Amino acid sequence: MAQADIGLIGLAVMGQNLILNMNDHGYVVAAFNRTVEKVDAFLAGPAKNTHVIGVHSLEELFKVLKRPRKVMFMVKAGQAVDDLIEECLPFLEKGDIVIDGGNSYFHDSERRYRTLKEKGILFVGAGISGGEEGARHGPSIMPGGNPDAWPLIKPVFQAIAAKAEEDGKPCCEWVGEGGAGHYVKMVHNGIEYGDMQLICEGYDLLKRHVGCTEKELQEIFTKWNHGDLKSYLIEITSQIFAHKDVDGKPLIDKILDVAGQKGTGKWTGIEALEHGIPVTLIGEAVFARCLSSLKEEREKASTFYAQPAYSFKGDKQKFIQETADALYGSKIISYTQGFMLMRAAAAVMKWNLNYGEIALMWRAGCIIRSKFLNDIGSAFVKEPNLANLLFDAFFQKALKSVSAGWREVVSEAVRSGIPMPCFSTALAFFDGYRTARLPANLLQAQRDFFGAHTYERTDAARGKFFHTNWTGTGGNVTSGSYNV
Amino acid sequence: MAQADIGLIGLAVMGQNLILNMNDHGYVVAAFNRTVEKVDAFLAGPAKNTHVIGVHSLEELFKVLKRPRKVMFMVKAGQAVDDLIEECLPFLEKGDIVIDGGNSYFHDSERRYRTLKEKGILFVGAGISGGEEGARHGPSIMPGGNPDAWPLIKPVFQAIAAKAEEDGKPCCEWVGEGGAGHYVKMVHNGIEYGDMQLICEGYDLLKRHVGCTEKELQEIFTKWNHGDLKSYLIEITSQIFAHKDVDGKPLIDKILDVAGQKGTGKWTGIEALEHGIPVTLIGEAVFARCLSSLKEEREKASTFYAQPAYSFKGDKQKFIQETADALYGSKIISYTQGFMLMRAAAAVMKWNLNYGEIALMWRAGCIIRSKFLNDIGSAFVKEPNLANLLFDAFFQKALKSVSAGWREVVSEAVRSGIPMPCFSTALAFFDGYRTARLPANLLQAQRDFFGAHTYERTDAARGKFFHTNWTGTGGNVTSGSYNV
Repeated sequence: MAQADIGLIGLAVMGQNLILNMNDHGYVVAAFNRTVEKVDAFLAGPAKNTHVIGVHSLEELFKVLKRPRKVMFMVKAGQAVDDLIEECLPFLEKGDIVIDGGNSYFHDSERRYRTLKEKGILFVGAGISGGEEGARHGPSIMPGGNPDAWPLIKPVFQAIAAKAEEDGKPCCEWVGEGGAGHYVKMVHNGIEYGDMQLICEGYDLLKRHVGCTEKELQEIFTKWNHGDLKSYLIEITSQIFAHKDVDGKPLIDKILDVAGQKGTGKWTGIEALEHGIPVTLIGEAVFARCLSSLKEEREKASTFYAQPAYSFKGDKQKFIQETADALYGSKIISYTQGFMLMRAAAAVMKWNLNYGEIALMWRAGCIIRSKFLNDIGSAFVKEPNLANLLFDAFFQKALKSVSAGWREVVSEAVRSGIPMPCFSTALAFFDGYRTARLPANLLQAQRDFFGAHTYERTDAARGKFFHTNWTGTGGNVTSGSYNV
Repeated sequence: MAQADIGLIGLAVMGQNLILNMNDHGYVVAAFNRTVEKVDAFLAGPAKNTHVIGVHSLEELFKVLKRPRKVMFMVKAGQAVDDLIEECLPFLEKGDIVIDGGNSYFHDSERRYRTLKEKGILFVGAGISGGEEGARHGPSIMPGGNPDAWPLIKPVFQAIAAKAEEDGKPCCEWVGEGGAGHYVKMVHNGIEYGDMQLICEGYDLLKRHVGCTEKELQEIFTKWNHGDLKSYLIEITSQIFAHKDVDGKPLIDKILDVAGQKGTGKWTGIEALEHGIPVTLIGEAVFARCLSSLKEEREKASTFYAQPAYSFKGDKQKFIQETADALYGSKIISYTQGFMLMRAAAAVMKWNLNYGEIALMWRAGCIIRSKFLNDIGSAFVKEPNLANLLFDAFFQKALKSVSAGWREVVSEAVRSGIPMPCFSTALAFFDGYRTARLPANLLQAQRDFFGAHTYERTDAARGKFFHTNWTGTGGNVTSGSYNV
């Protein structure tokens, strides 16, 4: 008997919480998991006294769903999604909707969208952010895929999505065709990598260089959470500093400094390289995690490379403010780079992305939610074709106000030997971006010198290429014709 | 009549010069090009009065080659190589050798090696560096592929290769199976990207911040070429500064600061991300080229973001030496990262790479040739299983001696607003690598807080994972079981 509004497959923490969230909003959800004991445990536990229907087979699942059937997967990204699609195919009818809510690679979502479209089935790749709390009480959802599916899933998705504090808008809008939803989620996750690393750098500097205690750090981050840096990650960081282990000492000090990584940060870096967009901050954030994992090598290296003999002698309160400036400036650069990447990808993939909506969609529910996303949203709403966030008046003003402190902090870190890969790459990008004349002229001269790669001139039209016989002995054959 | 020792297809500058080089060493080369006019022009021009045989079809080419036939491709990497293999197949016999000397992607070389192996044909993917001059008078050659081919091509390859000044060894040794040769060439090119960008950063700082003239720069680079930095790229840089345009002014100032890029730097960055190895310097060097290409945006941004009001007030000679220190320290880090990447790839690809030989093979002929490669070679010869170059006594001493100047330079650049993406990422890596305790503990706490990703503890065995209910309201379901 068809009675369920939507089916959800995969009862790990995210899946369970999404179901409970949908149930709260009056939707009847059919819950399935391959290991069916999980279904029973869920029904007897968290889903007790709800309208959730537990099913024990795909056949049963599709029987209880209203038409057109909507089935959402919350399974591990990769082969598991393809396998599950394959298993569902015998039950799927034209017009049914398959939603993949996992962290899938956008290339996979593109492919699944096309394959299912040929069969008349509407595929949606929906990026979901917010962790377990978000899933339970309102995540940010970034759906893309087959646009025909959107009107049919919009009510439930916008119902369960987080609502922005400022205007109550749901943090879920249609992103675009094919793999666009998972692409935007990928960039979101890359930005999340960056935001987390930036906070770590601020923490390292304030703890090791300035000597702040966990109690002071908690107060600093609590204070920061009332200013420009107001965000979920800053908020939980202050809570983390407050958390005591069983011995009454800060738990943070007992945690191993080896960070894991999933695929999304790496994918963002690869996409940046593929599109030739300098998304340096996310790249450095991913590499910082890689470096953290070389714990034994680092311990060994620390025994023969000493810390510079340079200690903090400045004004502590001033330096704490400058650290906030460095964090804020770096964060502006990171988001700037992320939006540059989305713009480049959209041009190639023919996605019509709405950058303002994307920023607004990230304001609540997701891990990178922050006050700051209103400012990004405003910049794009005001000027939808804004070529770069750094051209926006708000961000110009912000960067001008933080740059002195940011420089002070990076300089101090460099002298004290505390690594700031993201603070410093962001500053290098900012300084490079605002430099009309970079030293790449020398690079072009070198390439022409050793490889006859030719160069353009400042006093000639773009697209006109020159070759110099630098040594007087090389030939005049250029390498532009490196063809059979 | 079979009379040619080897055939070469593709008569652009690299191909022509390799042929002339082989001819100089007594090899009879058959030369072919799809646009056959090029064959005639070559024979009537550069190859006049040589033993080079011009052929006008593949059929003719294979007829004039001694058995087993050796055919070398010098064509554009990518589809052109596959097409050419396809066209040669009707003429190829078991035991014949196909050598791809282009800048092919190592994945393609792996595939071509396997495909041709099934047909009994020996494929060699040979990375060749040295530009047009190297190709003509002795390049560095990095051959990999089917090891059965090596004894048959070794004489000609080692004859035409550059010879190291120090010991006369040819800069060509067998690298490894499958795509190993092109992999090592890819890393070489990535390192080349890094070396070039480092020189540009030194140039920018000395010109814009210290105010050095081109004449002074020429003298500085000439001097550097007699010390630790002695290398081909430093040498040509000093020649570039000396080169005058027709108006008698330095040509370098007329060259547009927009750098092109081929695929190899990008591929190195992607490989670094794929293997989780923090090859940050090459990554930043690739991104610096991307940023250089945004010329119009940079010009626009320069109009509203002013340069900091900070001018150079130090001791000029001292600062020039410190810039050399920064360049040398950064270079050590870049090569360290490159060798880390090769080690990680070799483990996955089951290549038995000889790191000492690789360093020694780069000492002459190629673009990154330098004095310094002897030191890397020595480190690996002394300790073939050296886990990291930074553990070697020579490099420990070198880094200790340059680090103070390097910090001074990066700090000065940060204050003056001159972008140093590679100087600063190298320093951040160095500082991170020699730090036993990084702030990744906070990152792990955050991940456990919002996503129940669990963490390890400093006071528990590795591999034991903990989850904390940070807020007191979340559940105890961890995300480790995010499966159907």
